[in-house]
Amino acid sequence: MIILKIGGNILNKPGALAEALDYFAALKGPAILVHGGGRKASEVLAAMGMEPKMIDGRRITDAATLEIVTMVYGGLINKQVVADLQARGRNAIGLSGADGNAILAEKRPVKTIDYGFAGDVLGADGEMLWRLLDAGLTPVLCPITHDGNGQLLNTNADTIANETAIAIARARPEEQVSLRYCFEFPGVMRDIKDADSWIPELVPSSYAGFKADGTIVGGMIPKLDNAFAAVAAGVEEVVIGDLPALRAGEGTRCMENK
Amino acid sequence: MIILKIGGNILNKPGALAEALDYFAALKGPAILVHGGGRKASEVLAAMGMEPKMIDGRRITDAATLEIVTMVYGGLINKQVVADLQARGRNAIGLSGADGNAILAEKRPVKTIDYGFAGDVLGADGEMLWRLLDAGLTPVLCPITHDGNGQLLNTNADTIANETAIAIARARPEEQVSLRYCFEFPGVMRDIKDADSWIPELVPSSYAGFKADGTIVGGMIPKLDNAFAAVAAGVEEVVIGDLPALRAGEGTRCMENK
Repeated sequence: MIILKIGGNILNKPGALAEALDYFAALKGPAILVHGGGRKASEVLAAMGMEPKMIDGRRITDAATLEIVTMVYGGLINKQVVADLQARGRNAIGLSGADGNAILAEKRPVKTIDYGFAGDVLGADGEMLWRLLDAGLTPVLCPITHDGNGQLLNTNADTIANETAIAIARARPEEQVSLRYCFEFPGVMRDIKDADSWIPELVPSSYAGFKADGTIVGGMIPKLDNAFAAVAAGVEEVVIGDLPALRAGEGTRCMENK
Repeated sequence: MIILKIGGNILNKPGALAEALDYFAALKGPAILVHGGGRKASEVLAAMGMEPKMIDGRRITDAATLEIVTMVYGGLINKQVVADLQARGRNAIGLSGADGNAILAEKRPVKTIDYGFAGDVLGADGEMLWRLLDAGLTPVLCPITHDGNGQLLNTNADTIANETAIAIARARPEEQVSLRYCFEFPGVMRDIKDADSWIPELVPSSYAGFKADGTIVGGMIPKLDNAFAAVAAGVEEVVIGDLPALRAGEGTRCMENK
């Protein structure tokens, strides 16, 4: 059982998207695709004469932005990816978190910043997703969720992938769930300037060491914290790499201490 | 088993949409909702500085228009309706024709007019839709289909409702399928100026009579031709009326000759 997450670096390049969908469509057995947003929402915002709303460098989802991300993520990207997978012989079904109540979230509480209609995930419905998989369908999740009261919410795609993997593993503990993040590097890098410096395997103890000695820093930390939370919750492995790495069975493999 | 189609007259008025979703969510047993487009796509086109492309008064779906209808019908409207149904306790799942390969279409052949990316329906997958219904899910169909080769297509929502009802009936001949069109009149009218002149029941012979004597004319004819095609293909009844009529069990009921 494989869950693949693709983000903006793939979605913004038609050629890269086609290659990623080739890889995904050819995976054996049940699989789920999670996609992020990419540049298109900003382009549509700009075409409609609106500017992305930012506070302290962070994007705010006001009502107009929510409409546009719902259109672009839930409509344009999701439906085109589904049609592209159908063309590759994979019976895909596109879902937001509202569809089948797949992912329930809550509007992010206002502390110092009001993020607007941003959703923090409460949980995914692994049983429902397995029912779709059992029916021969391949769920394709977009980064829109709902609060159960009719409010759609803009939600981080990495979080959706992580929570989905956890729910899928919990619903069927006998299944081995592999969560794969396709990003812009061949793996978690010791040295960002050295393409060969990717780390083949991480366990909680070695990850703690790399954090302590400053090898792993910045944006990789929340990504890997999430990965190890998934592993601790029953996901067999989380693999992080670029498409060539994932295709070759490489990338950084995060798993439990042996 | 009820299939309800709602169109622009409902979607353009938030109050009317809420009432229609109240009615739909409260239906007993398995049900499918089909929605059309409404005014929003034209508003987004206009906001992006584009004009609807028309030839001889008919809308043409060029590439830019297809992007926008995919965003608006498949994203904005579909996801909001799904979230609204979830809030009413109905476990809705939004689908385009590409999702689960629900509705396969072909690009309309060019004769005198090139309609662009307009889809003529080849057929709906009644088995797959029943699998979703059996899993406790309520499909919500938007008027976007695909050709199986990765091309999304803009498709008439009445046709989608009709073909879906036929496929649902064919897949389980033992089920009684009721297809309900929610439109702007209490039923098929003998006299458009007389609100009490709606026809309670039509069968093929009486319909032929009303066509011959000029009682039923214009846009009602393709609508009723479709309705009787569905009835001939195994749909138990097609009911046409406004929301108060449908709620009251009224409207024009189209069925086989007795």
